[in-house]
Parts: sequence; structure tokens; C-alpha cells
Amino acid sequence: MEHFENDEQFQGLRVNKGTEEQPTVNPYLDSFKKFKRKTYTVSEYVEGILKGNISILGQAVTLIESAKPEHQSVAQEVIEKCLPYTGNSVRVGITGVPGAGKSTSIDVFGMHILKENEASKVAVLAIDPSSELTKGSILGDKTRMERLSVEKRAFIRPSPSAGSLGGVARKTRETIILCEAAGFDRIIVETVGVGQSETAVHSMVDFFLLIQLAGTGDELQGIKRGIMEMADGIVINKADGNNIEKARLAQSHFQNALHLFPLPDSGWQPKVLTYSGYYEIGIDEVWNMIDEYIDFVKKSGYFEHRRNSQSRFWMYETINERLKSNFYNDPEVQKELILCENQVLNSHMSSFVAANKVLDIYLKRS
Amino acid sequence: MEHFENDEQFQGLRVNKGTEEQPTVNPYLDSFKKFKRKTYTVSEYVEGILKGNISILGQAVTLIESAKPEHQSVAQEVIEKCLPYTGNSVRVGITGVPGAGKSTSIDVFGMHILKENEASKVAVLAIDPSSELTKGSILGDKTRMERLSVEKRAFIRPSPSAGSLGGVARKTRETIILCEAAGFDRIIVETVGVGQSETAVHSMVDFFLLIQLAGTGDELQGIKRGIMEMADGIVINKADGNNIEKARLAQSHFQNALHLFPLPDSGWQPKVLTYSGYYEIGIDEVWNMIDEYIDFVKKSGYFEHRRNSQSRFWMYETINERLKSNFYNDPEVQKELILCENQVLNSHMSSFVAANKVLDIYLKRS
Repeated sequence: MEHFENDEQFQGLRVNKGTEEQPTVNPYLDSFKKFKRKTYTVSEYVEGILKGNISILGQAVTLIESAKPEHQSVAQEVIEKCLPYTGNSVRVGITGVPGAGKSTSIDVFGMHILKENEASKVAVLAIDPSSELTKGSILGDKTRMERLSVEKRAFIRPSPSAGSLGGVARKTRETIILCEAAGFDRIIVETVGVGQSETAVHSMVDFFLLIQLAGTGDELQGIKRGIMEMADGIVINKADGNNIEKARLAQSHFQNALHLFPLPDSGWQPKVLTYSGYYEIGIDEVWNMIDEYIDFVKKSGYFEHRRNSQSRFWMYETINERLKSNFYNDPEVQKELILCENQVLNSHMSSFVAANKVLDIYLKRS
Repeated sequence: MEHFENDEQFQGLRVNKGTEEQPTVNPYLDSFKKFKRKTYTVSEYVEGILKGNISILGQAVTLIESAKPEHQSVAQEVIEKCLPYTGNSVRVGITGVPGAGKSTSIDVFGMHILKENEASKVAVLAIDPSSELTKGSILGDKTRMERLSVEKRAFIRPSPSAGSLGGVARKTRETIILCEAAGFDRIIVETVGVGQSETAVHSMVDFFLLIQLAGTGDELQGIKRGIMEMADGIVINKADGNNIEKARLAQSHFQNALHLFPLPDSGWQPKVLTYSGYYEIGIDEVWNMIDEYIDFVKKSGYFEHRRNSQSRFWMYETINERLKSNFYNDPEVQKELILCENQVLNSHMSSFVAANKVLDIYLKRS
């Protein structure tokens, strides 16, 4: 795995290039759009969001997702004005391979939260950098969360379909800010258990939940290395009917494996539970585990610590990504890079000399 | 763990600041030094190395490790001239917590290699970024490898004691090049099982061996997350006397745990063996496993692929590190960074806006 990750590393978090919005061909469509969607001022957006107006919230998120500079500048102002009203939520990341039953589970989890507390509001967001290929609707699709999608206290938003993981992650993080300002006190961020998107989700949530399937081990091959170690809890889905025994066996396998890892910094020993999303068995236990964890880390101060680290992380992540993209998108650098890389692969130049040769072109120019 | 790693991330691989060489106070000492150590020309170095002259090899490595620009420029020329004669070795990384018995094991492994093949030559290098604290001699210390250190076909070199992991790793990588040019066909790179140095070692070796101790699990807490997943083989030391049962139990625990991870890109299922370095039990088996692996990946083409990826990785790693150090060492950037970070932590500014504010100062200036 390592070497492929390395290959990716120097390209930043970029996964695939997004396409720019197509120019409007039909002039009527354009005026229709203008007619239909009211443009709000920054303070109208902020006021609407703080009142919990879901329609305005949705439109503000659209601005966040837009590639247009004028949309971005409004979005950033709205975010800044909303910042003082944020932070009062529990953010839960949920991952698992396709087929693990994430949507059904989130539908059930969300309904459970709304039932438990009449004042609670649930937002479901998603990070799926591959969604560009399928027009951005694999995850967080409302139609896959039948019950939650019709609830007034729920806000479901599919993954933004921008080109890079870094971009998608930033947009989701900013959407969390707006959701919290709009009074959503439970934020669920969904992602698929393949690729680097889990790291992105992990660095914006308080609790990271890994959904697994019962099985003898073969099914686990789809989970990327390192994800198990990020989990604050592992839950084994489809523990129902004939599957219960298999689920319990998987549970004890995972429990044993987790004991081989050192205790996370939180001081919390990750738990392994079984449940059934479809038959709604064990949902209470899953959610109690999360509540227990939140209590634990709030008391220890780790909750605050992790949130601060995350804010800092995203600041430096943004800086490092932009530093790199500025360098690697430079035409002169690109030309020299190809030449030097070939020299390195043919053992005509050491990696270090090659690196410095390309860097000197860039740094000495300024 | 995540958040601490994040904290580190933006500072690159820097672990602790190295100290500059002290100016010479005693003028006699200086002339004594000059008198004692002959200065070679680049071609004398290259010729000596290619002839397998260990004394000249050692002095060339000293140049690699030197912070002086004039030494560096000679070193880089020597490396470049040696490059065509490199690549013909098997590079093995060895890690394990302090007390796992790395030195004893490497002493025994080295002697085994020399005995197996009369034409073989073994180099033992080390990466230990913490060695600055203890004057750079924890690892690779000759006195800890009693038998190997007196062998003519062995070259043992402690960890360079430079300040940053990136720097230490680069020097070790360059030392590998010179050792290969000097005819060393088995290179062992040792590191401690704590911190980020394993990733560095992993990205310069063909086989990564993790030495563990037998036990019920508590002893494993010292091993950092992710290391087990990098291992191409795990060996459990001190499988002797009363300890054999415990070692076998640990073996089966590790075997089970490894099956929870997906198969590595190499297509090789990592093995778990037991051995005793002190009593020299099972040494053949450990080394046969490594030979078997090398055969396997040479046939599949993965060997070449991994080496190329590693060269590429080090090139881009060097670029990215220098891009970052150039930015973060900028006095204006440092000032603004502190201000913006505080704004972010007080929720007065979003991470993204803060990042762009600092970046604009740097990028727009040029």
C-alpha cells in the first residue's frame, strides 16, 4: 500500500479533476433560474440560518459548493458571521465498505436521535470524492434515507462533487459550521470505506464509527489499512436471524485485534458492538456507546483538545495543499519535474539532487 | 493519536533541533585533525569505494553526515558517480521496541549471512532521530554487535545525529547508495519502534521486519499504530526455555490479527515466526522467509516497482519538505501564523480563511 500512497502524496489529496460548471446554452433556463432562486444578502443568509430556516441553509451550502468566486466570497462572509454560534454539537463520522448498510443504519440512527430528544436536530452530510463520476449522489442521497428525509428536524445533503478530496472535505467542514449555527446538534458525516476520505472525515468529527459486516475475514479485505485504528467504535451490522452467531464471532475477532493496538490518545478503549440496522436491533446500545464516549472525553478535556487540534489541522492542511498546488501547477516546474524524475528512475541522479534542481527553479525565481 | 500527528505534520518531519558543530577553540587540535585525516578528491573517494575500501567508505559517509556545504558538495558528487554501481542488494529494515533484542538479533543475523555466503558483505545502518539527545550512538553501536563488528565483511554505522528525521533519513538513504557501490549486498537498517522513523525506514527497504516479544498483549502497547501493517514479516524473539509457549501464543495472536488486514500490494501474506536471538534458534527460518519474499517479489516485478516508487517518493518528499520549511521559516509568515491560529482557536476566523490570509502574504510577495 505504502508505495501507492507515496505516489499519491505529492499530488496532495487530489483524487480526480472536477469539471467546471457548463455554460448555460438555453437562455430561458438562465432567466428561469434567476426568477426561481432569490438571492439573499449576507445578513439575510445569517439571519435565516440562525433561525433554523432549512431552505436558506440549503442555499448557503450551495454557495459553499459553488466554484464561482463571487459565491465563495459571500459564503466565507456567512461562515465567519455564523462561527460564534457553532461548536455545540456532537459530530459523528460513519464509514464502512459499500454494502455494509450505511444508509439504512443512518436512517435508523437519525430516527433514534429524533425520538430520544424532541429538541434534537440531525444533519447528515457526506464526503465522497469519487462522486464526480456518478454525478455526486451516491452518498447522502435522500431517497436512501426514506424516513429521515421527510423529517422536519433533519437536513440531508449529498457529497459536494468538487474535484479534489481536499476541496470536498473543506466544503463539508464549512457545511458543518452552518448546520451547527442552524441549531443542528447531531451531525453525521458519512463516507465510503475506501480511499483517503476516512482520514478527512476522521479529522472533522468527535466520534468515528466503523460499520462492519459479520464474516470470517474475507469480507474485511475491502477495508483500507489504518481505518480500524482510527475507529472509536466498531459496529457489526446485520446481526439478525441466522447471522447472529457469525456477528458475535466477528465481534470477538475485532475485540482481540483492537487489543493489539495501543490505547488511543483519548484514553478510550474502542468498543465492538453488534446490531441490525434493518431489524432495528441494538440501536440504543450503539448510540449509548457514543454518548458514553462523549461524556468521557468532555470530562477529560480531550473533546475540546481534539476540536482545537482539528481546527489547527485544517488551517495547516489548507496552507500545505496550496503551497504544493502552487508549485506543482507551475509550467516550468512541471517540465523540469518530468526530466528529473526520469533521471532518478534511471539512476543518473539521486532523489535529493533531483529535488533540489526542481526547487531551485521555483524558489530562486521569486 | 491522529491529532498529535496532525500537530506534527505541518512542521514536517522535524523532531528536534540539531546543534551546529562547535567552533574549535584549541588551535592545535585543528592542525592535529588536519594532519591526521587525509582529504581525498572525488575520484579518489569513488575509486576507493568501488574497490570496497571500508576506511574510505567511512570517510565518505562522514561527508554525507557533515553540515558543511563544502563537504555536502563533495558528497553529492561522490554519490552521483557511485549511482550506476548501486541497486544490487537486499535492503532489510528492522524495528522493535527497546528491549526487543534488536542488536543481539542483528549481530546473529549478520553472522548468519556471512556464513551462508562467503561473497556476501553486510552493512548495518540505523535511523534514530532521537539520538541527538544521547549523542547519536544508541543504534548501530559497534559495541553492541560484538561479533559482527570485528568482521571484515561488515560495515556498522550508528545513526547520523542530525536534527530532523527528514535529514537523518536522507543521510541514511545516501549511505545505502555508497555501501552498495562498495559491494555490500545485504543492507540492514535498524530503527526503534517508536515515532515516525519506521515510515522513513520502510520507504527505503525491500523487506520490513518487526521484532516483537512474547507476551499476553501488554508488551505490545509500546508499538506505534500502523507499524504492524507495514511489516512484511513479524518475528517473536526470546522463544526459548520457559518462554516457548508464550511465544507460540503470541505468534497465533499476531497471525489472527494480520488476517484482519487486507493483503499488501506486494501480494505477499506477511508471516509470523518465533526465534531466539540469544540462543540462535530459528535464525535460518527468519532469513529463509526474507529470501523467499525477495524471490517472490522479484518474480512478480514488485521488487523493481517498490524501488522505483521509493526513489520517486524521496524526490517528492524532499521537495515538499523544502517547500514547507521555506514557508514556515519565513519571519513574516511566522508572525501572521500565530495571530491567525489564535483567531481560529477562538472561533473568530475559519481555518480556511486563516490559511489563505497567511498564504497570500507569502505567495503574493514573489
